[in-house]
Amino acid sequence: MATSMTSETTTADLGFAKLDLARQQRCGFPEVIYGEGKTTEGLLTIVQTMADAQQGCLITRVNAEQAVALEAQYPTAVQNRLGRTFWLRSSTSKQQMGKVAIVTAGTADLPVANEALATLEAMGFQPDLLSDVGVAGLHRLLAQLERIRQADVIIVVAGMEAALPSVLGGLVAVPVIAVPTSVGYGSHMNGLTALLGMLNSCAANVCVVNIDAGFKAAYVAGLMLLSSQRKGE
Amino acid sequence: MATSMTSETTTADLGFAKLDLARQQRCGFPEVIYGEGKTTEGLLTIVQTMADAQQGCLITRVNAEQAVALEAQYPTAVQNRLGRTFWLRSSTSKQQMGKVAIVTAGTADLPVANEALATLEAMGFQPDLLSDVGVAGLHRLLAQLERIRQADVIIVVAGMEAALPSVLGGLVAVPVIAVPTSVGYGSHMNGLTALLGMLNSCAANVCVVNIDAGFKAAYVAGLMLLSSQRKGE
Amino acid sequence: MATSMTSETTTADLGFAKLDLARQQRCGFPEVIYGEGKTTEGLLTIVQTMADAQQGCLITRVNAEQAVALEAQYPTAVQNRLGRTFWLRSSTSKQQMGKVAIVTAGTADLPVANEALATLEAMGFQPDLLSDVGVAGLHRLLAQLERIRQADVIIVVAGMEAALPSVLGGLVAVPVIAVPTSVGYGSHMNGLTALLGMLNSCAANVCVVNIDAGFKAAYVAGLMLLSSQRKGE
Amino acid sequence: MATSMTSETTTADLGFAKLDLARQQRCGFPEVIYGEGKTTEGLLTIVQTMADAQQGCLITRVNAEQAVALEAQYPTAVQNRLGRTFWLRSSTSKQQMGKVAIVTAGTADLPVANEALATLEAMGFQPDLLSDVGVAGLHRLLAQLERIRQADVIIVVAGMEAALPSVLGGLVAVPVIAVPTSVGYGSHMNGLTALLGMLNSCAANVCVVNIDAGFKAAYVAGLMLLSSQRKGE
Amino acid sequence: MATSMTSETTTADLGFAKLDLARQQRCGFPEVIYGEGKTTEGLLTIVQTMADAQQGCLITRVNAEQAVALEAQYPTAVQNRLGRTFWLRSSTSKQQMGKVAIVTAGTADLPVANEALATLEAMGFQPDLLSDVGVAGLHRLLAQLERIRQADVIIVVAGMEAALPSVLGGLVAVPVIAVPTSVGYGSHMNGLTALLGMLNSCAANVCVVNIDAGFKAAYVAGLMLLSSQRKGE
Amino acid sequence: MATSMTSETTTADLGFAKLDLARQQRCGFPEVIYGEGKTTEGLLTIVQTMADAQQGCLITRVNAEQAVALEAQYPTAVQNRLGRTFWLRSSTSKQQMGKVAIVTAGTADLPVANEALATLEAMGFQPDLLSDVGVAGLHRLLAQLERIRQADVIIVVAGMEAALPSVLGGLVAVPVIAVPTSVGYGSHMNGLTALLGMLNSCAANVCVVNIDAGFKAAYVAGLMLLSSQRKGE
Amino acid sequence: MATSMTSETTTADLGFAKLDLARQQRCGFPEVIYGEGKTTEGLLTIVQTMADAQQGCLITRVNAEQAVALEAQYPTAVQNRLGRTFWLRSSTSKQQMGKVAIVTAGTADLPVANEALATLEAMGFQPDLLSDVGVAGLHRLLAQLERIRQADVIIVVAGMEAALPSVLGGLVAVPVIAVPTSVGYGSHMNGLTALLGMLNSCAANVCVVNIDAGFKAAYVAGLMLLSSQRKGE
Amino acid sequence: MATSMTSETTTADLGFAKLDLARQQRCGFPEVIYGEGKTTEGLLTIVQTMADAQQGCLITRVNAEQAVALEAQYPTAVQNRLGRTFWLRSSTSKQQMGKVAIVTAGTADLPVANEALATLEAMGFQPDLLSDVGVAGLHRLLAQLERIRQADVIIVVAGMEAALPSVLGGLVAVPVIAVPTSVGYGSHMNGLTALLGMLNSCAANVCVVNIDAGFKAAYVAGLMLLSSQRKGE
Repeated sequence: MATSMTSETTTADLGFAKLDLARQQRCGFPEVIYGEGKTTEGLLTIVQTMADAQQGCLITRVNAEQAVALEAQYPTAVQNRLGRTFWLRSSTSKQQMGKVAIVTAGTADLPVANEALATLEAMGFQPDLLSDVGVAGLHRLLAQLERIRQADVIIVVAGMEAALPSVLGGLVAVPVIAVPTSVGYGSHMNGLTALLGMLNSCAANVCVVNIDAGFKAAYVAGLMLLSSQRKGE
Repeated sequence: MATSMTSETTTADLGFAKLDLARQQRCGFPEVIYGEGKTTEGLLTIVQTMADAQQGCLITRVNAEQAVALEAQYPTAVQNRLGRTFWLRSSTSKQQMGKVAIVTAGTADLPVANEALATLEAMGFQPDLLSDVGVAGLHRLLAQLERIRQADVIIVVAGMEAALPSVLGGLVAVPVIAVPTSVGYGSHMNGLTALLGMLNSCAANVCVVNIDAGFKAAYVAGLMLLSSQRKGE
Repeated sequence: MATSMTSETTTADLGFAKLDLARQQRCGFPEVIYGEGKTTEGLLTIVQTMADAQQGCLITRVNAEQAVALEAQYPTAVQNRLGRTFWLRSSTSKQQMGKVAIVTAGTADLPVANEALATLEAMGFQPDLLSDVGVAGLHRLLAQLERIRQADVIIVVAGMEAALPSVLGGLVAVPVIAVPTSVGYGSHMNGLTALLGMLNSCAANVCVVNIDAGFKAAYVAGLMLLSSQRKGE
Repeated sequence: MATSMTSETTTADLGFAKLDLARQQRCGFPEVIYGEGKTTEGLLTIVQTMADAQQGCLITRVNAEQAVALEAQYPTAVQNRLGRTFWLRSSTSKQQMGKVAIVTAGTADLPVANEALATLEAMGFQPDLLSDVGVAGLHRLLAQLERIRQADVIIVVAGMEAALPSVLGGLVAVPVIAVPTSVGYGSHMNGLTALLGMLNSCAANVCVVNIDAGFKAAYVAGLMLLSSQRKGE
Repeated sequence: MATSMTSETTTADLGFAKLDLARQQRCGFPEVIYGEGKTTEGLLTIVQTMADAQQGCLITRVNAEQAVALEAQYPTAVQNRLGRTFWLRSSTSKQQMGKVAIVTAGTADLPVANEALATLEAMGFQPDLLSDVGVAGLHRLLAQLERIRQADVIIVVAGMEAALPSVLGGLVAVPVIAVPTSVGYGSHMNGLTALLGMLNSCAANVCVVNIDAGFKAAYVAGLMLLSSQRKGE
Repeated sequence: MATSMTSETTTADLGFAKLDLARQQRCGFPEVIYGEGKTTEGLLTIVQTMADAQQGCLITRVNAEQAVALEAQYPTAVQNRLGRTFWLRSSTSKQQMGKVAIVTAGTADLPVANEALATLEAMGFQPDLLSDVGVAGLHRLLAQLERIRQADVIIVVAGMEAALPSVLGGLVAVPVIAVPTSVGYGSHMNGLTALLGMLNSCAANVCVVNIDAGFKAAYVAGLMLLSSQRKGE
Repeated sequence: MATSMTSETTTADLGFAKLDLARQQRCGFPEVIYGEGKTTEGLLTIVQTMADAQQGCLITRVNAEQAVALEAQYPTAVQNRLGRTFWLRSSTSKQQMGKVAIVTAGTADLPVANEALATLEAMGFQPDLLSDVGVAGLHRLLAQLERIRQADVIIVVAGMEAALPSVLGGLVAVPVIAVPTSVGYGSHMNGLTALLGMLNSCAANVCVVNIDAGFKAAYVAGLMLLSSQRKGE
Repeated sequence: MATSMTSETTTADLGFAKLDLARQQRCGFPEVIYGEGKTTEGLLTIVQTMADAQQGCLITRVNAEQAVALEAQYPTAVQNRLGRTFWLRSSTSKQQMGKVAIVTAGTADLPVANEALATLEAMGFQPDLLSDVGVAGLHRLLAQLERIRQADVIIVVAGMEAALPSVLGGLVAVPVIAVPTSVGYGSHMNGLTALLGMLNSCAANVCVVNIDAGFKAAYVAGLMLLSSQRKGE
């Protein structure tokens, strides 16, 4: 069974985190670190370890203090401040084919959408981001429909009642990955209302990830396209 | 304060129900009886009491046994079997102005929509019912838009994720009364998911009634139009 | 379908917000902006854009810092500090007919009631606000009954167990729009208890909006009256 | 400590139930048996055991089959079919002073109210039952106010939004014991909505028991009056 | 109906609060003000108004700043800092008969218990407070049993799983008013777990008030005793 | 916009259902009908309409009575009794490339897994079904790992705590579509526990559909593969 | 890793169930089968397979039909009808040391307690069952305390508010495994109230299993004792 | 009954806390104090009282300020800063036999795991802590399996979907005590998702304690081993 699992020898154990030092070679995209709850020093150590091993890495949920410290140390690394991500690009990273559209219902959904955007970029894709096309102003969505239909997979980011995946799902013939956000007030239940709405979508091509899980939606979307590529080879 | 309240002298107390024998004169539409949990004999007594007082009455949530018994006794009364209503028309009932559209997302929402339809008819309106125009097939809704826009108030009946009020709300400039239904499966939560979605609609012109409350939506819609009429007089 | 939707050419896209520059002309009342989560600079840019286009605008959920900055820049605009609203009046705004009563159960419900008040004023109405007439002191409500009965539609704002819509609904013959508030303690569930109570009201003329949604209740009430006016023309 | 607890020697252990054979002497009111889930044979054995020991007993939640069997065997015992109770009166039972009013919002609340009624009768009280005075028809309640104000303690039974305890609580100066019922539809949540509403009542003199717990409300009310009597002695 | 309700002429309307200036005379205990959310200036104005009318008043949920300001102005008034209450005693207040025991499961329940204590003192009672007798150390409770059994009514204050009312309820023959507290961690759900446990108590003499509602429990307990006294007169 | 939507002219409106008569040509797989709540006669009419138009169709949630009637009329159609599906194969249906593995945690998850299986077969795929490899017997899963790794996308069907997607997700490099089932007892909450567990999976490649939504998982999986094929063309 | 897992060669795969044919030898107690949802024929096949392999087996959640069929075929096997279990004893089963007490709050908890009893017997223990010692009649519990204190581990089975584990936990110095039951009415939430109460027990020695999970509690208790025995060897 | 309960004479009543001054002698491990909500001065008084009585004590949920003050006063006492515990070792404390493994899914679970670790150390055990072996990287768990299998009881600490107890439970033959943590985001519900997952584990040897209840898991584990020792004597 050993061959089917990541070898221990390519893992760096920092005590507060275990790092995969071979993912870039093995998967074609970098190790991903969840920044929340980690100290700034901890993150700097992680990045240095990855850099020393000539690995790229993506950090999500980077806070303001961490962002400043990381920029000072790695000025050429890519930061998406709205999406709260840091990406140390690997020299071996390569471009992937396949189009992903990231569509948001409102402007308040942009942080989650940017986390998805940055993740897909770190995986080698060039996603197309369209924001503020919520269903209460349907003309805004319909005006972008031809552009959205270029995509092989669509990520829809929405809070409140989260009706956008159902509407958009009915207008396209590709998978829709819906990301509920904690945007809203009153009985929005910190995103549970949006989550339940998306799970009960009448559109058959909609699957769902956790609330505010921009990274996960992007990761699944990227794997879909990579899986197809592999199949085509 | 006496003048501002229904006088006791026009009420019939049957023990298991108290009947308002002057609503038709006072309000222009009949007393409404909730049929669920009442015996068939009880309902027949109620209707007879109303008939003797030359009052109309509307019964909602009529079950199959009650429907047959009521039809045998009152063959000319109006029954909406899908909406489970019985309406004994009063000779003093009159037609009201004002247009209500009742719009459903799916065919499974039709029983609730028909309860609303029958209620509005008993109040003197001629509502327009459009069914199965859910958002996952957006062309079906857009094809009916001009017809829907004739309405002064719109009742939207939907289950599952209940995205229709948000989409339709954004396409019209009149109030939308949303009725969540218990239609769906899995995490639909017997209509709670639809209810929460409607309450958190991004469309500003949407208000909500209880799950499966077709009667209540119709009653509020009718009052809106009657209230305006009164104002215009 | 183009004619039935807002034309793109009258929209200003500020990146962080899209503004409708023709609503005042088209609808008779101004564009509404949700202030929460927007920067003070962003709001100032929005208001300036609307002012340059000779449009009025209403901003809701204005925080203290935003309120001071907006007042410095627009000293003649109308601010409702308790309701947290800012209203830049348009020269083309006009008075509307139709009476709305806004009734609160307690004094703690006044912020939500004032959001409704300011919204209706920006739509051209002159609502009547009555506060602190909760049902535990019934004489306070009954003493105001004649005044409340002048209204064509009533907005009821209440937290805790939210019994007021049921009592008041039974005393009037017009639609009641109930707004649950997050006022209370213990098992009030941040307003969910009030929301559920209102949805299950035994009064047939009660519909409901989201928790603390003073704006939405006012907007639906205003549309009801405008819809009737249109019908009368 | 032995003296402060029920002695074991006056308990009959039937295996499927343990019976207190001295409660009538000790407390002045009979042992109470919860009938649900017990077999008809079991109940008959219980009643015979109590009768043999010259004890009265009250059985709650009696089903139709049990009721018939009990009536055949104990034709002079008191059954409240609506309240689903059976009461074998003890020769030593005596009348108690103190007035309890039992007030229901609707006719559907009558089964729970009758369970309370029968319990109080078995404790020696003569409660006054008033039904169908829900708040949506306020005049019905106000018309009964003087009668209700005769009571030393009031039991209010209501489902749906359960606004009655708040309104009635504000009109009297005695304790109100509120019983939520599972009556309603849609988001009534089998009585949870009524329960939460009652717990969050703005009236300070309202306490609450479990959903449909007519027996418990009556028992607490009876103890209140007995406790005062004891004090007066 | 006028005679049965508080006369308007004895009410002071301060705008942000309406004060009952005759409760002390009418009920024998003072008006109660909920301090939370009120400004310090507001509270001072309220107390001054009551003092000018020779009325006592009780304020609950007093915060630290309010407490200091009230002490400076009314040094002889009674404050219960742990219970967060302020009581301006009226010259007409009188002692009441009847014994209330207030029993807490843990020391963390003491703030809620003290709110109950101060309320009962302001109503003229001399309650007996026993703390930290939770069921996990049963000997602590049993050691106090004779003392607790002196009471005519018992208030039990408990958080976490709130087992104390069930155990104590089985050991006494008087009503138990259970107050769930928001004390606990993990799945205590801010007191909902304790609330549900108390509502489902297997002891028949337990009724319940809202989470942390020490005032309400005391008010109901006081009314029970006053109601009995009235009856005895 | 007309070209981008299904033309009305290829839709058959049966009143109780609207049928798409061109999906097979347009999408390569048949129209899907949700059988629950439809009458047996209704289903027969639907199938006949599709057959007359030389269309295939898939019906899900077929009950026992419907299954027998459909078999009598269409003996050569494919029924999956465990998965409760009926498939009328179209002469134009074709085989698709791409591998899907359907993996269940227990044998009680097989009905949902078979709904997914039948859906994928109707779309032209040959899915591989592996059952009863839940994580509590890890060797069962590991023994099948090489076989599972042949898949381009994996559907995991699990109830109870639904740990399988997390474990399997970590062992493969393709997207995992998780289907929670309502299998379990006690606090399984009819599948909500499984749903929440899957949404919070620590494996980054897991997305989720509604409870028991075997059809939806299969449809999304099929679209992923079709989308990739389209891209490759 | 192979040695650390159950070998495939001792597993019988019946298609609808996989059976472990070496557990008796390996663990000292038999394979356990969950009967719910399995056909009577299926169960008979399972038992025959186990018998053929000279293995014992325990079946839980046996329904009435299954019980009769199993008794006909295996008249000497042990059935606990109240606990709904069937146990085919293995010739190699042996007695284990260590004492388990199973204590129930009420008689309605006996089915769950009997499932635990039968499980422990099948594991080789001789558990001691005490029923109906709920905390509302504390003397019943205290009277049994010395007997309960003989146990090395205690299983407490309780519904409603489930206070028994807290009280008993404080009286003993061994682990308490609490089993919430779905016994109760009103807001008992099918056992969720009992479950939450047990999880929040103030007694430090209480751990919890799923609602009605008598088997699981017994299995954990048995393993505790077996684990200690192993240690002592 | 006196002999079976803690004698009052060995208890110190500090008013804000009651201390058991004989637990070390009686149980072999020290009194445990819950630090949350206590003042620093209070904690210092508690520790001094215990020290004066030559007792050890364990304090859990120590905050940063308390930790510093305690270290200044008791520099030789053992503090676990990550686990937030303080342990004043008693001269009479002794080593216990029996092995406990504490296993965490992620590094964010370490604070809860350390509370368990410190508790077991204070009880005299030498637990083995293994962290970051979550199931999404199964090789990390399998690599540690032999080490984990040395334990007589295993504590598993996990947040998010909490799949680890199910996987590990299936790989060992000893009891697993699962501790859900409030680690996660989105619909993790502050640990409720993990709690429900653990309760519904398909592994039969898993029992559960409250969210973040590291102390309680350790205490139950320690009692298991002590109970066995006692039995062996």
